[in-house]
Amino acid sequence: MGNVNIKFLAKELNLSTSTVSRALKDSYEISVETKRKVMALAKKLNYQPNPSACSLREQKTKTIAVVIPEISNNFFALAINGIEKVARENNYHLLIYLTHENQQREITYFNTLSNGRVDGVLLSMSIEGSDTSHLEEFNQKGIPLVFFDRVCSKMSNTKVTTDDYDSSYLATKHLIEAGCKNISFLMISKNISIGKIRMNGYLDAIKAHTNQKPLIIECTNNYQENYQLIKNIIIENKTDGIFSSVEYLAIECYNVCKEINLKIPDDIKIISFSNLQTAHLLNPSLTTIAQPAFDMGEMAAKLLLKQINGKDDSKIFEPIILKSKLIIGKSTSVISHSNSRNRLRK
Amino acid sequence: MGNVNIKFLAKELNLSTSTVSRALKDSYEISVETKRKVMALAKKLNYQPNPSACSLREQKTKTIAVVIPEISNNFFALAINGIEKVARENNYHLLIYLTHENQQREITYFNTLSNGRVDGVLLSMSIEGSDTSHLEEFNQKGIPLVFFDRVCSKMSNTKVTTDDYDSSYLATKHLIEAGCKNISFLMISKNISIGKIRMNGYLDAIKAHTNQKPLIIECTNNYQENYQLIKNIIIENKTDGIFSSVEYLAIECYNVCKEINLKIPDDIKIISFSNLQTAHLLNPSLTTIAQPAFDMGEMAAKLLLKQINGKDDSKIFEPIILKSKLIIGKSTSVISHSNSRNRLRK
Repeated sequence: MGNVNIKFLAKELNLSTSTVSRALKDSYEISVETKRKVMALAKKLNYQPNPSACSLREQKTKTIAVVIPEISNNFFALAINGIEKVARENNYHLLIYLTHENQQREITYFNTLSNGRVDGVLLSMSIEGSDTSHLEEFNQKGIPLVFFDRVCSKMSNTKVTTDDYDSSYLATKHLIEAGCKNISFLMISKNISIGKIRMNGYLDAIKAHTNQKPLIIECTNNYQENYQLIKNIIIENKTDGIFSSVEYLAIECYNVCKEINLKIPDDIKIISFSNLQTAHLLNPSLTTIAQPAFDMGEMAAKLLLKQINGKDDSKIFEPIILKSKLIIGKSTSVISHSNSRNRLRK
Repeated sequence: MGNVNIKFLAKELNLSTSTVSRALKDSYEISVETKRKVMALAKKLNYQPNPSACSLREQKTKTIAVVIPEISNNFFALAINGIEKVARENNYHLLIYLTHENQQREITYFNTLSNGRVDGVLLSMSIEGSDTSHLEEFNQKGIPLVFFDRVCSKMSNTKVTTDDYDSSYLATKHLIEAGCKNISFLMISKNISIGKIRMNGYLDAIKAHTNQKPLIIECTNNYQENYQLIKNIIIENKTDGIFSSVEYLAIECYNVCKEINLKIPDDIKIISFSNLQTAHLLNPSLTTIAQPAFDMGEMAAKLLLKQINGKDDSKIFEPIILKSKLIIGKSTSVISHSNSRNRLRK
């Protein structure tokens, strides 16, 4: 069977296209009997309205976009599950765009999204560049935009984040209490708010509870470079505690320790923001700050739909903060036996 | 600034909308001078064509959809990276739909995709149900559909898979050579081709190289049920080797072994199809059959675009097969010391 459209239905029923169109919309201008006939045939032939035509008529695309840095990442995969749930339940279609941390791509995506393709956008920013003019321009189009996780603090759009400062403070304190004397902080970028907030949690905990000199390592988007950076701080700086602000840097720490035969937690302790499903099965199990990734995606999508449907005109300047959870593994255990690097170093 | 559309450009330049429209399309009917003026203003004001209007005019949406069971899964996340690369490089938009293994959702998605929303679809099937009438109906609409990984063998659409039979045979043989005497196969569904093919690789290897009675466990989509099923075969059936056809069942095996204090690989050996980034960091490292997930997504998307652009009219009945890779970890090491369950059982 070819395409079943309004024209086809009209011909089959010997009605005008405008009658069929109005009948399908349950218009009061059309008799109950006619509506019944039209609906029955539409159902029988599995009539699906042409989305482009509907969209032009109604100025609604029933489509939202999510722009994120990466998908092969447990946090974002779980967040998309939350977003997809809301989209599906509300009959919205979901477009996905990956920046791979490249701001030029983010700019290109927002340019193409700015003219009617979507009813709203969810964004977790790329780390590159601190310019937000493309987002400010997008806001002027009046298309709802909601941030999650990697938000832009200076913009007034709705934002969904976690308690990044408190979690970072807690993670750092956890390493201090486990006996670490030289704690390094691994981060991906100072450009994005989340990077700065997590760094401040680390800095304040170090200052409040130790006499240590803080050590902040700004990593890159390149695996080999990160591997070398981490190897250097472990060997040169004799770091005995690492707080990683993102999952893939913690995995790199494990790789380095495996290569240079350093024992976790005896020689070095590791804690990381992470949603790794296998964190408890690693050798040794990884202590994590687990973000409520699914809930964050779900919440951000719900707030976006509210704005799309005009049910939320309130400008929320303060971010909505969901709580992360400290899950203690063996990677931060207090040393129980004497075979530690510190002892060997003496 | 409001929406910059053709009407707006026409007013600004004191031209008719049809002149502007044709100028933007570089029509020979419009003078070079006028085209230059129109293009310059369009660029200056960042004019973006309305996608719905374009789509109605050109009968092209520049959008493809990917329908997959799950996104919080390393295989599918990597495959999407491959698909996204091709979409981005060819200026296509990517819609994403998750079935969560529910066939009714798959059917609903194909119904809504069948009327002009997309130029083509990539599908990895859900495990539920063996009915494919919704896909056959979709094919009749003439919209290109390409399968990857979980393909429908009876349909003539283009398919991209891995060497599932050979890999399964190899994985089973690997366990036999490591000394396993009682090997179980964990699968998710016999309904989908990939399930059957992997099962046959296991069955043939068992038959060719051992006198063992094969044991096939059909798992479900429910974590707790799977946990119990796996616990049962380990305790009741005294399985000493597990070949898991999907990653999350292997993780469940590790969870069970951890709970009942069974040593991998001393008491039981485990191998799994998996793209887990942390497989080498697990305790012990997991032996995997790693699929070329990124390449599969990339290949499937390229073939889809070829069909969309009419450059590939050939019906390919045979699946395109990319090779998986056996990566040996410690979870299948030959027992080196005497502290095994088999010894304790005596």
